[in-house]
Amino acid sequence: MKQIIVKCPGTVANLVCGFDILGLALNEPSDILELQLLDKPEVIIHNRDHYNLPTEPERNVAGVVLLSIMEKLDKPVGFEVTIEKHIKPGSGIGSSAASAAGAAVAANHLLGNPFTTDEVVQFAMNGEKLASGVKHADNIAPCILGGVSLIRSIHPLDIVSIPSPDLFVTVVHPQIEVRTSDARQILKQQVLLKDAIRQWGNIAGLVTGFMKNDYDLIGRSLEDVIIEPVRSILIPGFDEVKKQCKEAGALGGGISGSGPSVFMLSRNEEDARIVEAVMKGIYTKIGIDFNIYVTTINKKGVEVV
Amino acid sequence: MKQIIVKCPGTVANLVCGFDILGLALNEPSDILELQLLDKPEVIIHNRDHYNLPTEPERNVAGVVLLSIMEKLDKPVGFEVTIEKHIKPGSGIGSSAASAAGAAVAANHLLGNPFTTDEVVQFAMNGEKLASGVKHADNIAPCILGGVSLIRSIHPLDIVSIPSPDLFVTVVHPQIEVRTSDARQILKQQVLLKDAIRQWGNIAGLVTGFMKNDYDLIGRSLEDVIIEPVRSILIPGFDEVKKQCKEAGALGGGISGSGPSVFMLSRNEEDARIVEAVMKGIYTKIGIDFNIYVTTINKKGVEVV
Repeated sequence: MKQIIVKCPGTVANLVCGFDILGLALNEPSDILELQLLDKPEVIIHNRDHYNLPTEPERNVAGVVLLSIMEKLDKPVGFEVTIEKHIKPGSGIGSSAASAAGAAVAANHLLGNPFTTDEVVQFAMNGEKLASGVKHADNIAPCILGGVSLIRSIHPLDIVSIPSPDLFVTVVHPQIEVRTSDARQILKQQVLLKDAIRQWGNIAGLVTGFMKNDYDLIGRSLEDVIIEPVRSILIPGFDEVKKQCKEAGALGGGISGSGPSVFMLSRNEEDARIVEAVMKGIYTKIGIDFNIYVTTINKKGVEVV
Repeated sequence: MKQIIVKCPGTVANLVCGFDILGLALNEPSDILELQLLDKPEVIIHNRDHYNLPTEPERNVAGVVLLSIMEKLDKPVGFEVTIEKHIKPGSGIGSSAASAAGAAVAANHLLGNPFTTDEVVQFAMNGEKLASGVKHADNIAPCILGGVSLIRSIHPLDIVSIPSPDLFVTVVHPQIEVRTSDARQILKQQVLLKDAIRQWGNIAGLVTGFMKNDYDLIGRSLEDVIIEPVRSILIPGFDEVKKQCKEAGALGGGISGSGPSVFMLSRNEEDARIVEAVMKGIYTKIGIDFNIYVTTINKKGVEVV
């Protein structure tokens, strides 16, 4: 095989109480990535969108992933990649992870699958390092595996798939910029033990809720006493969105990744549509442009099309 | 019904990474508690053991629980209780919780079950308040419900049963004193965010491991980077016990509650017996007396006999 086209799902990292350890994949939005094997050790990048992302391999998320893969090969191959982004960069819905994971999965396919899933995740994390300065996997893992992923540990890498019910997800992306690096810098490096205890009660509750299909427990556990109180300040309308969406029937939700997107989980499409209307109303009133998605959990991850 | 006899299991709280939120019940050791309904609003306490625990109701763990129940009744009843403790006070295997939970469950039975399980837990927590100064439920909940309990939240009370495989538990109680209040006081009130993240990854992993019957994941997740490094200093031989037991085949383990008991989980009885031999060897060498139990997870909780 010389060429492959993959679909790379958007992802919601953190899932409110699971900062840096939980993420889930979305059926919408998703990117398309075409990859071709070359006989020369070079990386050529084309953008088929209007985001003007860098095309120098060393400055491109997919580029650095492909370069890191080439380093591990004992033959002189290269890649030509065409990226069609639908997940807006900086949205907090795993845009960089989609490019990085898509490139890693597609390259592994073209090469005849020489690498394990953990190795593919490791390659893709090089893209996250370029995008945010930190090698994190809470977008990469669900993007590659689909569903809900737990990253129990980064060193050593330990990824666990968490079974979950077929939840509906409403995601609103208010068109403001929150840089991932800024969103990391405002976090306090120390937390109160009593807050940490509350947080790990919620994380254990959320995971249990997913695995037991216990919607109420999922809802009660979607509480974040550590990160959200700090980061939500960067997102206009956040408190109102959260309050009104829950009153309107959402199980719960919060900041997607480091924002500015905000997501809400619902038990059915009807509730998710009502949540959409609430979000539209709030951002229309505030006067901030937005994109909005009503979707479901993607169970497949990066997929050959 | 005027009289009831209940068996009250010992419990292991915290389960290494789940400080204040996780606990499990043991089939051994357990206390026996006999409760009789009286026509007068008084509490009479007898000890059928050699621990010389206080018999004034206000100073006795079961006593304060029964007094708190009497306050909620609109009729003048009292209780006569005989306690036969086999779970040594101060062992870290939920001795106070067994008395408190046993008294609460037995009284509710005798009264015709007017209280919900959550209310029974609340009554029993008054005993923990007397014993340790803090109303915690990580021994009380598994003692009453059996199995593995998650206390997602204390305010409001939110207890979740976690399904688990039939694990074997080896518990060694070195005969030294560690006061629960001391074990609490040495904890730092602030923790590093990066340590908290590692801890919540482990908690999510442990709960997932229990629910997926994934023994290796349970083992990998039994890691505590926050509490154990501080508290284990109070327990002679702790590091050696942990290291050697894991090398001998234990899935993992750590301090039971606030210590000094140390527990290890194993996937079968053979491994649990090897772990027992390792523990015996270490404490014999150090020259500290000990009790040791090789048992399984109790799935019933406080039980009428």
